[in-house]
Amino acid sequence: MSIVLYDLAGADPEVRFSPYCWRTRFALAHKGLPVETVPWRFTDGSVIAFSGQGKVPVIRDGETVVADSWAIAAYLEDQYPAPTLFGCSTGRAHAQFVNAWADAVLVGGIARFIVRDLLDAIHPRDQPYFRSSREARFGMSLEDVQAGRDDRLAAFRDSLLPLRLVLRRQPWFGGPAPSYADHILAGTLMWPRCVSRFALLADDDPITEWLSRMLLEYGGLGSQAKRHA
Amino acid sequence: MSIVLYDLAGADPEVRFSPYCWRTRFALAHKGLPVETVPWRFTDGSVIAFSGQGKVPVIRDGETVVADSWAIAAYLEDQYPAPTLFGCSTGRAHAQFVNAWADAVLVGGIARFIVRDLLDAIHPRDQPYFRSSREARFGMSLEDVQAGRDDRLAAFRDSLLPLRLVLRRQPWFGGPAPSYADHILAGTLMWPRCVSRFALLADDDPITEWLSRMLLEYGGLGSQAKRHA
Repeated sequence: MSIVLYDLAGADPEVRFSPYCWRTRFALAHKGLPVETVPWRFTDGSVIAFSGQGKVPVIRDGETVVADSWAIAAYLEDQYPAPTLFGCSTGRAHAQFVNAWADAVLVGGIARFIVRDLLDAIHPRDQPYFRSSREARFGMSLEDVQAGRDDRLAAFRDSLLPLRLVLRRQPWFGGPAPSYADHILAGTLMWPRCVSRFALLADDDPITEWLSRMLLEYGGLGSQAKRHA
Repeated sequence: MSIVLYDLAGADPEVRFSPYCWRTRFALAHKGLPVETVPWRFTDGSVIAFSGQGKVPVIRDGETVVADSWAIAAYLEDQYPAPTLFGCSTGRAHAQFVNAWADAVLVGGIARFIVRDLLDAIHPRDQPYFRSSREARFGMSLEDVQAGRDDRLAAFRDSLLPLRLVLRRQPWFGGPAPSYADHILAGTLMWPRCVSRFALLADDDPITEWLSRMLLEYGGLGSQAKRHA
Protein backbone atom coordinates (compact mmCIF):
# COMPACT_ATOMS: atom_id res chain seq x y z
CA MET A 1 0.00 0.00 0.00
CA SER A 2 1.34 3.40 -0.98
CA ILE A 3 2.15 6.12 1.49
CA VAL A 4 -0.14 9.11 0.87
CA LEU A 5 1.55 12.52 0.78
CA TYR A 6 -0.47 15.73 0.94
CA ASP A 7 1.64 17.93 -1.31
CA LEU A 8 1.36 21.67 -1.92
CA ALA A 9 0.19 22.27 -5.52
CA GLY A 10 -0.17 25.32 -7.74
CA ALA A 11 -2.93 26.45 -10.04
CA ASP A 12 -1.72 23.57 -12.19
CA PRO A 13 -2.17 20.59 -9.85
CA GLU A 14 0.96 18.99 -11.31
CA VAL A 15 3.18 21.90 -10.24
CA ARG A 16 4.43 20.98 -6.77
CA PHE A 17 6.72 23.54 -5.20
CA SER A 18 6.88 23.34 -1.41
CA PRO A 19 10.50 23.21 -0.19
CA TYR A 20 9.33 21.07 2.72
CA CYS A 21 7.19 18.67 0.66
CA TRP A 22 10.14 18.21 -1.69
CA ARG A 23 12.34 17.12 1.23
CA THR A 24 9.74 14.44 1.90
CA ARG A 25 9.45 13.45 -1.77
CA PHE A 26 13.20 12.89 -1.98
CA ALA A 27 13.27 10.97 1.31
CA LEU A 28 10.44 8.67 0.18
CA ALA A 29 12.21 8.09 -3.14
CA HIS A 30 15.48 7.37 -1.31
CA LYS A 31 13.69 4.70 0.71
CA GLY A 32 12.15 3.29 -2.47
CA LEU A 33 8.69 3.62 -0.95
CA PRO A 34 5.68 3.92 -3.27
CA VAL A 35 3.87 7.21 -2.81
CA GLU A 36 0.53 8.60 -3.87
CA THR A 37 0.52 12.39 -3.73
CA VAL A 38 -2.63 14.41 -3.14
CA PRO A 39 -2.54 18.00 -4.43
CA TRP A 40 -3.25 20.41 -1.59
CA ARG A 41 -3.65 24.18 -1.54
CA PHE A 42 -3.05 26.72 1.24
CA THR A 43 -6.81 27.16 1.61
CA ASP A 44 -7.40 23.40 2.04
CA GLY A 45 -6.54 23.44 5.73
CA SER A 46 -9.58 21.37 6.69
CA VAL A 47 -8.54 18.55 4.34
CA ILE A 48 -5.60 17.74 6.64
CA ALA A 49 -7.40 18.48 9.90
CA PHE A 50 -6.93 14.77 10.74
CA SER A 51 -3.21 15.55 11.21
CA GLY A 52 -3.98 17.92 14.07
CA GLN A 53 -2.42 20.92 12.34
CA GLY A 54 -2.73 22.89 9.12
CA LYS A 55 0.48 22.62 7.08
CA VAL A 56 1.96 20.20 4.59
CA PRO A 57 3.79 17.91 4.20
CA VAL A 58 1.54 15.39 5.90
CA ILE A 59 1.85 11.68 5.24
CA ARG A 60 -0.53 8.86 5.96
CA ASP A 61 1.11 5.44 6.15
CA GLY A 62 -1.67 2.95 6.86
CA GLU A 63 -2.99 4.05 10.24
CA THR A 64 -0.08 6.36 10.98
CA VAL A 65 -0.23 10.09 10.26
CA VAL A 66 2.89 12.27 10.46
CA ALA A 67 3.19 16.01 9.79
CA ASP A 68 6.35 18.18 9.42
CA SER A 69 9.17 17.30 7.04
CA TRP A 70 11.71 16.59 9.78
CA ALA A 71 9.28 14.40 11.75
CA ILE A 72 8.43 12.53 8.54
CA ALA A 73 12.11 11.87 7.77
CA ALA A 74 12.65 10.62 11.32
CA TYR A 75 9.56 8.40 11.08
CA LEU A 76 10.66 6.93 7.74
CA GLU A 77 14.16 6.23 9.08
CA ASP A 78 12.78 4.45 12.15
CA GLN A 79 10.09 2.52 10.28
CA TYR A 80 12.05 1.67 7.11
CA PRO A 81 15.72 1.67 8.10
CA ALA A 82 17.29 0.84 4.72
CA PRO A 83 18.53 2.57 2.69
CA THR A 84 19.43 4.96 5.45
CA LEU A 85 18.74 8.71 5.40
CA PHE A 86 21.07 9.57 8.29
CA GLY A 87 23.56 6.71 8.73
CA CYS A 88 23.31 6.72 12.53
CA SER A 89 21.91 8.77 15.39
CA THR A 90 24.84 11.22 15.27
CA GLY A 91 24.33 11.59 11.53
CA ARG A 92 20.71 12.45 12.29
CA ALA A 93 21.71 14.98 14.94
CA HIS A 94 24.20 16.61 12.56
CA ALA A 95 21.54 16.82 9.82
CA GLN A 96 19.53 19.03 12.20
CA PHE A 97 22.05 21.78 11.57
CA VAL A 98 21.66 21.46 7.80
CA ASN A 99 17.89 21.58 8.27
CA ALA A 100 18.12 24.62 10.55
CA TRP A 101 20.42 26.48 8.15
CA ALA A 102 18.13 25.70 5.22
CA ASP A 103 15.11 26.98 7.17
CA ALA A 104 16.76 30.07 8.66
CA VAL A 105 19.02 31.18 5.81
CA LEU A 106 18.17 29.45 2.54
CA VAL A 107 14.35 29.63 2.58
CA GLY A 108 14.33 33.26 3.69
CA GLY A 109 17.08 34.18 1.25
CA ILE A 110 15.34 32.57 -1.72
CA ALA A 111 11.93 34.03 -0.83
CA ARG A 112 13.20 37.54 -1.51
CA PHE A 113 13.93 36.54 -5.12
CA ILE A 114 10.83 34.59 -6.06
CA VAL A 115 7.89 35.44 -3.81
CA ARG A 116 6.15 37.60 -6.43
CA ASP A 117 6.77 34.99 -9.15
CA LEU A 118 5.33 32.40 -6.79
CA LEU A 119 2.07 34.34 -6.56
CA ASP A 120 1.51 33.68 -10.27
CA ALA A 121 2.05 29.95 -9.88
CA ILE A 122 -0.34 29.30 -7.02
CA HIS A 123 -4.05 28.58 -7.30
CA PRO A 124 -6.25 31.70 -7.69
CA ARG A 125 -8.20 30.76 -4.60
CA ASP A 126 -4.93 30.74 -2.60
CA GLN A 127 -3.73 34.10 -3.89
CA PRO A 128 -5.51 36.46 -1.43
CA TYR A 129 -4.33 34.39 1.56
CA PHE A 130 -0.82 34.12 0.16
CA ARG A 131 -0.45 37.81 -0.58
CA SER A 132 -1.83 39.01 2.74
CA SER A 133 0.07 36.52 4.92
CA ARG A 134 3.42 37.05 3.15
CA GLU A 135 3.05 40.81 2.97
CA ALA A 136 2.38 40.82 6.72
CA ARG A 137 5.51 38.71 7.27
CA PHE A 138 7.76 40.94 5.14
CA GLY A 139 6.08 44.21 6.08
CA MET A 140 5.86 45.26 2.42
CA SER A 141 4.19 44.31 -0.84
CA LEU A 142 5.32 41.17 -2.66
CA GLU A 143 6.41 43.40 -5.52
CA ASP A 144 8.64 45.40 -3.18
CA VAL A 145 10.11 42.25 -1.59
CA GLN A 146 11.25 41.01 -4.97
CA ALA A 147 12.29 44.42 -6.35
CA GLY A 148 15.97 44.98 -7.16
CA ARG A 149 16.75 41.31 -7.09
CA ASP A 150 19.49 41.57 -9.70
CA ASP A 151 21.40 43.89 -7.39
CA ARG A 152 21.05 41.52 -4.44
CA LEU A 153 22.03 38.38 -6.32
CA ALA A 154 25.77 38.50 -5.67
CA ALA A 155 25.26 38.75 -1.90
CA PHE A 156 22.82 35.84 -1.95
CA ARG A 157 25.25 33.69 -3.91
CA ASP A 158 28.00 34.61 -1.43
CA SER A 159 25.79 33.36 1.41
CA LEU A 160 25.94 29.89 -0.12
CA LEU A 161 29.71 29.59 0.41
CA PRO A 162 29.35 26.87 3.09
CA LEU A 163 27.72 24.63 0.47
CA ARG A 164 30.61 25.13 -1.94
CA LEU A 165 33.19 24.40 0.75
CA VAL A 166 31.55 21.02 1.40
CA LEU A 167 31.33 20.19 -2.31
CA ARG A 168 35.09 20.80 -2.62
CA ARG A 169 35.57 17.86 -0.29
CA GLN A 170 32.86 15.36 -1.18
CA PRO A 171 30.38 14.77 -4.04
CA TRP A 172 27.24 14.82 -1.87
CA PHE A 173 26.32 16.40 1.45
CA GLY A 174 25.89 12.82 2.66
CA GLY A 175 29.43 11.92 1.55
CA PRO A 176 29.92 9.41 -1.29
CA ALA A 177 26.13 9.14 -1.79
CA PRO A 178 23.11 11.39 -1.13
CA SER A 179 21.61 11.48 2.36
CA TYR A 180 18.77 13.44 3.90
CA ALA A 181 21.13 16.44 3.97
CA ASP A 182 20.99 16.40 0.16
CA HIS A 183 17.21 16.06 0.31
CA ILE A 184 16.90 19.10 2.56
CA LEU A 185 19.05 21.28 0.32
CA ALA A 186 17.83 20.05 -3.06
CA GLY A 187 14.25 20.03 -1.79
CA THR A 188 14.60 23.68 -0.84
CA LEU A 189 16.05 24.50 -4.27
CA MET A 190 13.16 22.72 -6.03
CA TRP A 191 10.97 25.52 -4.74
CA PRO A 192 12.45 28.34 -6.88
CA ARG A 193 13.03 25.89 -9.73
CA CYS A 194 9.33 25.01 -9.97
CA VAL A 195 7.83 28.51 -9.71
CA SER A 196 10.35 30.97 -11.19
CA ARG A 197 12.68 31.34 -14.15
CA PHE A 198 15.03 33.62 -12.23
CA ALA A 199 18.59 32.25 -12.31
CA LEU A 200 19.47 32.08 -8.62
CA LEU A 201 22.64 30.07 -9.25
CA ALA A 202 25.34 30.74 -11.82
CA ASP A 203 25.81 28.05 -14.46
CA ASP A 204 29.40 27.45 -13.35
CA ASP A 205 28.60 27.27 -9.63
CA PRO A 206 29.56 23.91 -8.07
CA ILE A 207 26.14 24.01 -6.39
CA THR A 208 24.54 23.99 -9.86
CA GLU A 209 26.62 20.95 -10.80
CA TRP A 210 25.61 19.11 -7.61
CA LEU A 211 21.94 20.06 -8.07
CA SER A 212 21.96 18.82 -11.66
CA ARG A 213 23.22 15.45 -10.40
CA MET A 214 20.64 15.45 -7.64
CA LEU A 215 17.81 16.11 -10.12
CA LEU A 216 18.78 12.92 -11.95
CA GLU A 217 18.74 10.73 -8.83
CA TYR A 218 15.71 8.55 -8.06
CA GLY A 219 14.83 8.05 -11.70
CA GLY A 220 15.03 11.76 -12.47
CA LEU A 221 12.40 12.72 -9.90
CA GLY A 222 13.61 16.31 -9.68
CA SER A 223 14.40 16.84 -13.36
CA GLN A 224 10.98 15.58 -14.44
CA ALA A 225 9.04 17.75 -11.99
CA LYS A 226 6.66 20.11 -13.76
CA ARG A 227 7.57 23.81 -13.62
CA HIS A 228 5.24 26.78 -13.83
CA ALA A 229 5.17 27.93 -17.46
CA MET B 1 53.06 8.41 24.91
CA SER B 2 51.26 11.71 24.63
CA ILE B 3 50.17 13.20 21.35
CA VAL B 4 52.03 16.47 20.77
CA LEU B 5 49.91 19.43 19.63
CA TYR B 6 51.50 22.59 18.26
CA ASP B 7 49.06 25.16 19.58
CA LEU B 8 48.83 28.87 18.76
CA ALA B 9 49.81 30.90 21.86
CA GLY B 10 49.70 34.57 22.79
CA ALA B 11 52.25 36.84 24.45
CA ASP B 12 51.36 34.82 27.52
CA PRO B 13 52.26 31.28 26.44
CA GLU B 14 49.33 29.93 28.46
CA VAL B 15 46.78 31.91 26.46
CA ARG B 16 45.74 29.63 23.59
CA PHE B 17 43.21 31.10 21.25
CA SER B 18 43.17 29.50 17.81
CA PRO B 19 39.62 28.46 16.80
CA TYR B 20 41.13 25.57 14.87
CA CYS B 21 43.52 24.39 17.60
CA TRP B 22 40.59 24.45 20.03
CA ARG B 23 38.64 22.09 17.78
CA THR B 24 41.58 19.71 18.07
CA ARG B 25 41.89 20.19 21.85
CA PHE B 26 38.24 19.25 22.34
CA ALA B 27 38.50 16.28 20.00
CA LEU B 28 41.58 14.95 21.82
CA ALA B 29 39.82 15.39 25.16
CA HIS B 30 36.72 13.64 23.82
CA LYS B 31 38.89 10.67 22.88
CA GLY B 32 40.52 10.74 26.33
CA LEU B 33 43.95 10.95 24.70
CA PRO B 34 46.83 12.47 26.66
CA VAL B 35 48.21 15.57 24.97
CA GLU B 36 51.31 17.67 25.38
CA THR B 37 50.82 21.11 23.86
CA VAL B 38 53.69 23.17 22.47
CA PRO B 39 53.11 26.93 22.36
CA TRP B 40 53.56 28.19 18.81
CA ARG B 41 53.48 31.68 17.35
CA PHE B 42 52.63 32.92 13.86
CA THR B 43 56.32 33.68 13.26
CA ASP B 44 57.38 30.15 14.23
CA GLY B 45 56.62 28.70 10.82
CA SER B 46 59.93 26.84 10.62
CA VAL B 47 59.21 24.97 13.87
CA ILE B 48 56.46 23.00 12.10
CA ALA B 49 58.23 22.71 8.74
CA PHE B 50 58.28 18.94 9.36
CA SER B 51 54.52 18.99 8.72
CA GLY B 52 55.01 20.21 5.16
CA GLN B 53 53.05 23.41 5.71
CA GLY B 54 53.02 26.47 7.96
CA LYS B 55 49.83 26.53 10.03
CA VAL B 56 48.62 25.04 13.27
CA PRO B 57 47.09 22.84 14.52
CA VAL B 58 49.68 20.18 13.81
CA ILE B 59 49.84 16.97 15.80
CA ARG B 60 52.60 14.42 16.12
CA ASP B 61 51.41 10.99 17.24
CA GLY B 62 54.50 8.81 17.43
CA GLU B 63 55.77 8.75 13.86
CA THR B 64 52.59 10.22 12.38
CA VAL B 65 52.23 13.93 11.67
CA VAL B 66 48.87 15.45 10.75
CA ALA B 67 48.06 19.11 10.01
CA ASP B 68 44.65 20.84 9.63
CA SER B 69 41.90 20.53 12.24
CA TRP B 70 39.54 18.53 10.01
CA ALA B 71 42.28 16.11 8.93
CA ILE B 72 43.29 15.68 12.58
CA ALA B 73 39.71 14.87 13.62
CA ALA B 74 39.43 12.34 10.81
CA TYR B 75 42.78 10.80 11.78
CA LEU B 76 41.79 10.53 15.45
CA GLU B 77 38.45 8.93 14.55
CA ASP B 78 40.12 6.35 12.32
CA GLN B 79 42.99 5.61 14.71
CA TYR B 80 41.08 5.75 18.02
CA PRO B 81 37.45 4.88 17.17
CA ALA B 82 35.93 5.16 20.66
CA PRO B 83 34.41 7.33 21.94
CA THR B 84 33.29 8.41 18.50
CA LEU B 85 33.49 11.97 17.14
CA PHE B 86 31.14 11.40 14.20
CA GLY B 87 29.05 8.28 14.91
CA CYS B 88 29.40 6.91 11.37
CA SER B 89 30.59 7.93 7.91
CA THR B 90 27.36 9.85 7.20
CA GLY B 91 27.73 11.63 10.53
CA ARG B 92 31.23 12.61 9.43
CA ALA B 93 29.96 13.83 6.04
CA HIS B 94 27.23 15.89 7.71
CA ALA B 95 29.76 17.44 10.11
CA GLN B 96 31.55 18.85 7.03
CA PHE B 97 28.66 21.30 6.67
CA VAL B 98 28.99 22.43 10.28
CA ASN B 99 32.73 22.87 9.71
CA ALA B 100 32.17 24.80 6.47
CA TRP B 101 29.58 27.08 8.07
CA ALA B 102 31.87 27.74 11.02
CA ASP B 103 34.75 28.60 8.67
CA ALA B 104 32.74 30.68 6.18
CA VAL B 105 30.29 32.46 8.47
CA LEU B 106 31.28 32.18 12.12
CA VAL B 107 35.04 32.84 11.93
CA GLY B 108 34.60 35.77 9.55
CA GLY B 109 31.71 37.16 11.56
CA ILE B 110 33.56 37.00 14.87
CA ALA B 111 36.77 38.47 13.43
CA ARG B 112 35.03 41.78 12.79
CA PHE B 113 34.35 42.10 16.53
CA ILE B 114 37.66 41.06 18.04
CA VAL B 115 40.52 41.39 15.58
CA ARG B 116 41.89 44.57 17.18
CA ASP B 117 41.55 43.10 20.68
CA LEU B 118 43.37 40.04 19.41
CA LEU B 119 46.37 42.15 18.43
CA ASP B 120 46.90 42.99 22.10
CA ALA B 121 46.86 39.34 23.12
CA ILE B 122 49.39 38.00 20.65
CA HIS B 123 53.14 37.93 21.06
CA PRO B 124 54.90 41.22 20.23
CA ARG B 125 57.05 39.47 17.66
CA ASP B 126 53.86 38.29 15.90
CA GLN B 127 52.20 41.69 15.87
CA PRO B 128 53.72 43.21 12.69
CA TYR B 129 52.91 40.06 10.71
CA PHE B 130 49.43 39.85 12.19
CA ARG B 131 48.56 43.47 11.51
CA SER B 132 49.86 43.53 7.94
CA SER B 133 48.36 40.19 6.90
CA ARG B 134 44.93 40.88 8.40
CA GLU B 135 44.79 44.46 7.17
CA ALA B 136 45.56 43.19 3.67
CA ARG B 137 42.75 40.63 4.02
CA PHE B 138 40.17 43.16 5.22
CA GLY B 139 41.44 46.05 3.10
CA MET B 140 41.42 48.39 6.10
CA SER B 141 43.11 48.95 9.47
CA LEU B 142 42.34 46.58 12.33
CA GLU B 143 40.90 49.55 14.19
CA ASP B 144 38.47 50.23 11.32
CA VAL B 145 37.49 46.56 11.06
CA GLN B 146 36.44 46.51 14.69
CA ALA B 147 34.91 50.02 14.71
CA GLY B 148 31.19 50.35 15.33
CA ARG B 149 30.87 46.84 16.66
CA ASP B 150 28.06 47.69 19.07
CA ASP B 151 25.92 48.72 16.11
CA ARG B 152 26.65 45.50 14.24
CA LEU B 153 26.05 43.17 17.16
CA ALA B 154 22.33 42.55 16.61
CA ALA B 155 22.91 41.46 13.00
CA PHE B 156 25.71 39.11 14.07
CA ARG B 157 23.53 37.55 16.73
CA ASP B 158 20.75 37.11 14.16
CA SER B 159 23.18 35.21 11.93
CA LEU B 160 23.45 32.55 14.64
CA LEU B 161 19.77 31.59 14.35
CA PRO B 162 20.55 28.15 12.85
CA LEU B 163 22.39 27.25 16.06
CA ARG B 164 19.39 28.24 18.19
CA LEU B 165 17.00 26.22 16.03
CA VAL B 166 19.09 23.10 16.63
CA LEU B 167 19.32 23.74 20.38
CA ARG B 168 15.51 23.92 20.55
CA ARG B 169 15.47 20.29 19.48
CA GLN B 170 18.46 18.68 21.16
CA PRO B 171 20.93 19.51 23.96
CA TRP B 172 24.08 19.16 21.85
CA PHE B 173 24.88 19.51 18.16
CA GLY B 174 25.80 15.84 18.35
CA GLY B 175 22.38 14.95 19.80
CA PRO B 176 22.15 13.62 23.39
CA ALA B 177 25.93 14.05 23.86
CA PRO B 178 28.64 16.26 22.34
CA SER B 179 30.19 15.28 19.02
CA TYR B 180 32.80 16.88 16.80
CA ALA B 181 30.06 19.30 15.68
CA ASP B 182 30.12 20.68 19.23
CA HIS B 183 33.92 20.81 19.13
CA ILE B 184 33.88 22.82 15.89
CA LEU B 185 31.40 25.37 17.23
CA ALA B 186 32.69 25.64 20.80
CA GLY B 187 36.27 25.62 19.54
CA THR B 188 35.48 28.59 17.32
CA LEU B 189 33.85 30.43 20.25
CA MET B 190 36.90 29.80 22.46
CA TRP B 191 38.74 32.20 20.18
CA PRO B 192 36.84 35.39 21.16
CA ARG B 193 36.52 34.12 24.73
CA CYS B 194 40.28 33.88 25.20
CA VAL B 195 41.31 37.19 23.61
CA SER B 196 38.47 39.67 24.14
CA ARG B 197 36.03 40.80 26.82
CA PHE B 198 33.46 41.88 24.24
CA ALA B 199 30.10 40.18 24.91
CA LEU B 200 29.35 38.54 21.56
CA LEU B 201 26.47 36.52 22.98
CA ALA B 202 23.63 37.72 25.18
CA ASP B 203 23.44 36.16 28.64
CA ASP B 204 20.00 34.73 27.92
CA ASP B 205 20.90 33.31 24.51
CA PRO B 206 20.42 29.51 24.33
CA ILE B 207 23.85 29.42 22.65
CA THR B 208 25.35 30.89 25.83
CA GLU B 209 23.67 28.17 27.88
CA TRP B 210 24.99 25.44 25.56
CA LEU B 211 28.48 26.97 25.56
CA SER B 212 28.53 27.15 29.35
CA ARG B 213 27.77 23.41 29.47
CA MET B 214 30.39 22.74 26.83
CA LEU B 215 33.05 24.63 28.82
CA LEU B 216 32.46 22.23 31.72
CA GLU B 217 32.86 19.09 29.62
CA TYR B 218 36.16 17.19 29.66
CA GLY B 219 37.00 18.19 33.20
CA GLY B 220 36.30 21.87 32.55
CA LEU B 221 38.85 22.13 29.74
CA GLY B 222 37.19 25.21 28.25
CA SER B 223 36.24 26.94 31.48
CA GLN B 224 39.77 26.63 32.86
CA ALA B 225 41.45 27.99 29.75
CA LYS B 226 43.45 31.11 30.47
CA ARG B 227 42.08 34.33 28.99
CA HIS B 228 43.99 37.46 28.03
CA ALA B 229 43.81 39.86 30.96
